[in-house]
Amino acid sequence: MTSHAIRHVRVTPIAFRDPPLLNAAGIHEPWALRSIIEIETDSGLIGINESYGDLPMLDALAQAAPALTGLSPWALNEMETRVAALVAPKQTTASEFLGTQISLAPGTHVSKTVAKVISAFEVAMMDLQGQLANAPVVDLLGGAARPAVPFSAYLFFKYAEHIDQPYAPDPWGEALTPEQLVAQARRMIDQYGFKSIKLKAGALPPEQEVAGLLALAQAFPGAPLRIDPNGNWSVPTSLQVVEQLRGVLEYYEDPAPGLDGMAAVAKACEVPLATNMVVTDLKEFRRNAEMGCPVKIVLSDHHYWGGLRATQRLALMCETFGLGLSMHSNSHLGISLMAMTHLAASVPQLSYACDTHYPWQDDEVVQGGRLRFEDGSLRVTTTPGLGVRIDREALARLHDNYLNTSIRNRDDLAQMRRYDPSFTGRQPRY
Amino acid sequence: MTSHAIRHVRVTPIAFRDPPLLNAAGIHEPWALRSIIEIETDSGLIGINESYGDLPMLDALAQAAPALTGLSPWALNEMETRVAALVAPKQTTASEFLGTQISLAPGTHVSKTVAKVISAFEVAMMDLQGQLANAPVVDLLGGAARPAVPFSAYLFFKYAEHIDQPYAPDPWGEALTPEQLVAQARRMIDQYGFKSIKLKAGALPPEQEVAGLLALAQAFPGAPLRIDPNGNWSVPTSLQVVEQLRGVLEYYEDPAPGLDGMAAVAKACEVPLATNMVVTDLKEFRRNAEMGCPVKIVLSDHHYWGGLRATQRLALMCETFGLGLSMHSNSHLGISLMAMTHLAASVPQLSYACDTHYPWQDDEVVQGGRLRFEDGSLRVTTTPGLGVRIDREALARLHDNYLNTSIRNRDDLAQMRRYDPSFTGRQPRY
Repeated sequence: MTSHAIRHVRVTPIAFRDPPLLNAAGIHEPWALRSIIEIETDSGLIGINESYGDLPMLDALAQAAPALTGLSPWALNEMETRVAALVAPKQTTASEFLGTQISLAPGTHVSKTVAKVISAFEVAMMDLQGQLANAPVVDLLGGAARPAVPFSAYLFFKYAEHIDQPYAPDPWGEALTPEQLVAQARRMIDQYGFKSIKLKAGALPPEQEVAGLLALAQAFPGAPLRIDPNGNWSVPTSLQVVEQLRGVLEYYEDPAPGLDGMAAVAKACEVPLATNMVVTDLKEFRRNAEMGCPVKIVLSDHHYWGGLRATQRLALMCETFGLGLSMHSNSHLGISLMAMTHLAASVPQLSYACDTHYPWQDDEVVQGGRLRFEDGSLRVTTTPGLGVRIDREALARLHDNYLNTSIRNRDDLAQMRRYDPSFTGRQPRY
Repeated sequence: MTSHAIRHVRVTPIAFRDPPLLNAAGIHEPWALRSIIEIETDSGLIGINESYGDLPMLDALAQAAPALTGLSPWALNEMETRVAALVAPKQTTASEFLGTQISLAPGTHVSKTVAKVISAFEVAMMDLQGQLANAPVVDLLGGAARPAVPFSAYLFFKYAEHIDQPYAPDPWGEALTPEQLVAQARRMIDQYGFKSIKLKAGALPPEQEVAGLLALAQAFPGAPLRIDPNGNWSVPTSLQVVEQLRGVLEYYEDPAPGLDGMAAVAKACEVPLATNMVVTDLKEFRRNAEMGCPVKIVLSDHHYWGGLRATQRLALMCETFGLGLSMHSNSHLGISLMAMTHLAASVPQLSYACDTHYPWQDDEVVQGGRLRFEDGSLRVTTTPGLGVRIDREALARLHDNYLNTSIRNRDDLAQMRRYDPSFTGRQPRY
């Protein structure tokens, strides 16, 4: 009988172009990092996934990879136990290293390492399971509750090009004024068909961001709108902004920092608060529940919530406490996008269009190139496993990018200081 | 290509001998009812399950069965949506019908009908999935966290035989005194190897039940002990009993009725409270959490929690709120037992030995007859699907039992009145 036991894990760090997008922490660097995970069985099957690509994550993946040797692709619980044993103790040292990025990208917080590694392996193992069972990953998650998953137009204030011009400017141009922002939205919606709009805020003075959002509301009447300053506003500023945006917002994402800050905003604000910053694990979920749920919508992310199955469980917890559920994103390529799509298709409670940075990337690691949206949605694949396979040439090229850049950890703050040496990154800024 | 779409659902009600076991609601009738579910695909595969067999459940299964036609065995989410649409609206009328059994057996409460039907179909569909994927059900649930699942010795006060002697007396004899109870435990533990002991209480005056438990503690030193009067004690009685049992109990199951009663007991009691009566769905889970978790251990039951996957999600919710998790049972045969075993093997958090009524039955519906325990545990099967198949002759015989009894709904109260016409069933009795 053929053995489908796991014999090999390969982790390939990659880098791809990322535009100069502004946010609360600073500005995106010219190269975004990811890791491509391949898990191979004795029988020669390969399960794939995409995850974070910063150095601490690559270290953790390398530490944990031996745990998989000899495991069945079905043995997710055993994998979780082994990974927790291998990864948990060593990671407490890296916390300062990650510095200011913690609040912006909870996926990079050291406390999430075990959950992140589990997720990185789980999806690849489920890709294997799908190949073994002749079923798409969504079927292993209970089957599709919807045939396609809606995503939102994720708008950023941005510069026309990176400092020092590491490569030709992106086609999106500058977006600092309301007019430029509306043009960005128009371009993205024309190209992808998105129905909802999210504006990454917390970068410019709030009145400029409010003006941008009001211009979007006028230009796209009826489109659900969201704004996300990543906790970069004080409670009074948060309340002032939401008053200025009265009647416009679908939900209000992470206006003020911390769960206490969010609770203070919630008390005086009718718009439901969403978060990917203050409810990012089970402990924080419980604290929010015990406070009477000031946060009403959890923006899940299987990459740091511990995988596809863990996020499905989060969905039931949200249902239990009357919370909504949507999906957070970081800069990513098509494997992550497809995993998000299988997951979102399988979660009936996921009733909002999901975030994705995908339009900001111009490269791809999967065969067939860039994935295509229809009317703002991505159709869940029906072939076995994740439904995407690695393009070997593209992977080599993206890995070369990684070797050729000196970036090893995302640092939006240091990058911003290259434009503006006086930038402190102190939060909340406004 | 072969179609594995579902083409047919068959539900066969069965009845099997059940001893005269005493409990808070009265006494077991001579026949226990269950339903055997078979789901057949176009390709001729058959997925099986076992569930409740009372008339309202049979009605609900019949109402919901058409929902499955044409579905893929993987389409659990779609099945859930369809079942909810078909079953939910009609079931409000049956509530009085179920009468006094509600508090004793939450699985029979009408509010659980949708969850119960979903569970009944889900397990059979997962049995099909396992056959399609060549994987045991436990693998579809993330793989075994333990190779075998420990169960507990589930002791009852009982009469030597049923009133009117419908069949020859069971081999267990009478158990009304501490000595008889210890003998019952000895017999059960010798035969099955159980390490934990649960005493069903709420039947005799509390001082007699306390004496029984203390005798067990003395006869089986070190064995984890539990007592479950099904909410048949007032708060003062509950506290008096736990004081008399100081140092003896592993957990204290449903002493007083209602979550408020349980909370009152919890305030003055160091032993953790467990329940299968006041946290039986998501709404009650939330209420317990919002009250600061007076109940510390949830006794799950996939038959009414909405299935195997729903119970896995419950496990994460318990972890989030620091709750323990164990498993409740009703009178059942081997298909239910095997489903419980696959589930329990897949849930790392399930750290207590599970309840099972299995030793009280002497018949079986699966090929190979009665399932065998080793050292109090049942090994999870490794063949595709649930790992048990229906014995057609046994099914026919058990269905004949059903046709030959007039019992159509469990009614321990009416049965007790045949022994003692003055029995009111009023709770809490003591």
